[in-house]
Amino acid sequence: MGWQIHWLRVLSNKPPIDSKIPKAVVSRLSLYLRELQQLIREGIPTISSTKLGRRLGFTASQIRKDIAYFGQFGYPGIGYKCEELVAEIRSILGTDRTWPVVLVGCGNLGQALLGYRGFSTQGFEVVAAVDVDESLVGNTIEGIQIDRLSRLSEIVREKGVRVAILAVPSEAAESAVEAIVDAGITGILNFAPVTLALPKNIGLVEVDLARELEQLAFSVLQKDES
Amino acid sequence: MGWQIHWLRVLSNKPPIDSKIPKAVVSRLSLYLRELQQLIREGIPTISSTKLGRRLGFTASQIRKDIAYFGQFGYPGIGYKCEELVAEIRSILGTDRTWPVVLVGCGNLGQALLGYRGFSTQGFEVVAAVDVDESLVGNTIEGIQIDRLSRLSEIVREKGVRVAILAVPSEAAESAVEAIVDAGITGILNFAPVTLALPKNIGLVEVDLARELEQLAFSVLQKDES
Repeated sequence: MGWQIHWLRVLSNKPPIDSKIPKAVVSRLSLYLRELQQLIREGIPTISSTKLGRRLGFTASQIRKDIAYFGQFGYPGIGYKCEELVAEIRSILGTDRTWPVVLVGCGNLGQALLGYRGFSTQGFEVVAAVDVDESLVGNTIEGIQIDRLSRLSEIVREKGVRVAILAVPSEAAESAVEAIVDAGITGILNFAPVTLALPKNIGLVEVDLARELEQLAFSVLQKDES
Repeated sequence: MGWQIHWLRVLSNKPPIDSKIPKAVVSRLSLYLRELQQLIREGIPTISSTKLGRRLGFTASQIRKDIAYFGQFGYPGIGYKCEELVAEIRSILGTDRTWPVVLVGCGNLGQALLGYRGFSTQGFEVVAAVDVDESLVGNTIEGIQIDRLSRLSEIVREKGVRVAILAVPSEAAESAVEAIVDAGITGILNFAPVTLALPKNIGLVEVDLARELEQLAFSVLQKDES
């Protein structure tokens, strides 16, 4: 939980992508990618599904089944070539290209996120930032000048923005989402602690830091009480 | 799925907390809390499990069953008193108190997180920050002076730290976790993009922003290809 993806009803029929990929499989792809990148750092060029599974706590067949959704990438007697599979997975996930991103909401969280380089390493380039607060408009943070939310559609057109990072307080989320949808954005990474109702043709991933902190507090509490 | 909790084998037998609470229930408590806080903002003092369920897309019985794990909080003919249930849930989750937190890793992500006020609103007070990078030690960010990782145990003792926010690069995670465990910390909020192997008596919540960005990229890609 803490995240959630709305899947398009009618998925691409473009091979090799299967049109009924469980989201758990896509989520595990990220785990495989992370581990393969670690293997490359360790100087290990190839790995069998068995060894990869052992490192991640999955069965070999689970890994082969997950990866087979996207094509045949294993070599008999060799297993997977780490560099090659990393490139394939990044291409499957879409993190092998650059996504121009607009930050919607430039308060504390938004400003913190602007300072986070991890977005660009994943190909998400923040090219614009907007807010409704006139006292913020015009300020430059991390090289990005904050613009008015009312200009979002123009900005999206001018800069070819595809994705929005939503970092507004919950009470501002509804109107912000309206502006995002009207602007024709196709994906939202939501940091606002609210559940968004979106048209099915918009990708959504929700990051609820508040919830994750609550889960942490509860687990620590349980340990203390034992 | 971007987060994960290791549950203690032997849980508290202290009533009213049930010793076999599914983590999905605890995760839904966060959703209920968020919605009840929204109701209070809307000036709605009480709500039935049916109406609360309708707002969240859950059945009334689901909500009653989840909340019943922790005690009897509903009133016949009234439902739940929002203020009261908010207080109860915050107490159950442990976000009604202050948790002294140490930030481990003061690079880009760590510095971004230091700027995030959301931690303190959830009761997580960052009281110290450590790094292995001597060029960072001594710098003050958001009023916190960065100290050496090697001083972690002293700092934890001095400041009564219970929780660590881990924001180091993956290659630094293993040694950082070792220091955190040795220092006697009981909970880790992990932003490092690696799966941590921890003693079972340490609470762990993992926030994998990289994975969530990959999930977003994939969902946007699927929509584009359709």
